Amino acid sequence: MTEHSLWRFSRALHRAINERQFEDLGTLIDEDVDWAIYGPIDMFPFLGARRGREAVMEVVRQIAENFRVYRFDRETVMLGVDSAASMLRYALTSLESNKPISLRVAHFAQFRNGRLRNIRVLLDSFDLVEQALGRHIHLPKMTSVA
Amino acid sequence: MTEHSLWRFSRALHRAINERQFEDLGTLIDEDVDWAIYGPIDMFPFLGARRGREAVMEVVRQIAENFRVYRFDRETVMLGVDSAASMLRYALTSLESNKPISLRVAHFAQFRNGRLRNIRVLLDSFDLVEQALGRHIHLPKMTSVA
Repeated sequence: MTEHSLWRFSRALHRAINERQFEDLGTLIDEDVDWAIYGPIDMFPFLGARRGREAVMEVVRQIAENFRVYRFDRETVMLGVDSAASMLRYALTSLESNKPISLRVAHFAQFRNGRLRNIRVLLDSFDLVEQALGRHIHLPKMTSVA
Repeated sequence: MTEHSLWRFSRALHRAINERQFEDLGTLIDEDVDWAIYGPIDMFPFLGARRGREAVMEVVRQIAENFRVYRFDRETVMLGVDSAASMLRYALTSLESNKPISLRVAHFAQFRNGRLRNIRVLLDSFDLVEQALGRHIHLPKMTSVA
């Protein structure tokens, strides 16, 4: 039984971010990959949609220039033949501020011939913004009930 | 082949929110369910973690008092024997403001004997906050690269 594409991709991604070793990751991304990390692109320009390996590798380089992955816990994982979905909790360090950031992430990925073909990543983006700002954003209560 | 628990749960949930018919949903939730929707609880007190059917039904009642589901598209779904994960896009209406809200949601659910046992829901929470406020929150660019 061969290893699921998710595990190879995950190792290569974290190695790219933490050690700036991008070569393995490049071989695991489809040339025409469809990629999106939903979140505030004003604050983090490397979030958003990208198409193609080169654009995605540039995103990963920018993440590597800004963050280190301190640890991650995969709380849930579902594997299909060529697909995978996980809910993860990341402990990151912002390299600019040296601040720790705790971030919950969900991803849905599709692979083809062992390479990433499509990925959609959702973040608890408000929580991320507050941690990156280092302050609480006051919000009014918006519901009609107590 | 019996229908996957996800489909029955999803129908009952949307019927509860849109028609305030809560009975079916109650029969599809485990008495000791472990539930969490990650997001800004200051703004939406029905977000956050809950334990047990009664607490979850109260959350669903509060959602029903504040929102209608106008439509939803399930962009990705993965089904296991007793588990399911989806990425969805919801078009909601806020009943208080009558404003439309577009919301991306990821969930990971586990069922037992056809009842929801555990669910974790992640939202693009910053996008939700901006839509609910009806204004853009200015964010500084936080990266060290252009």
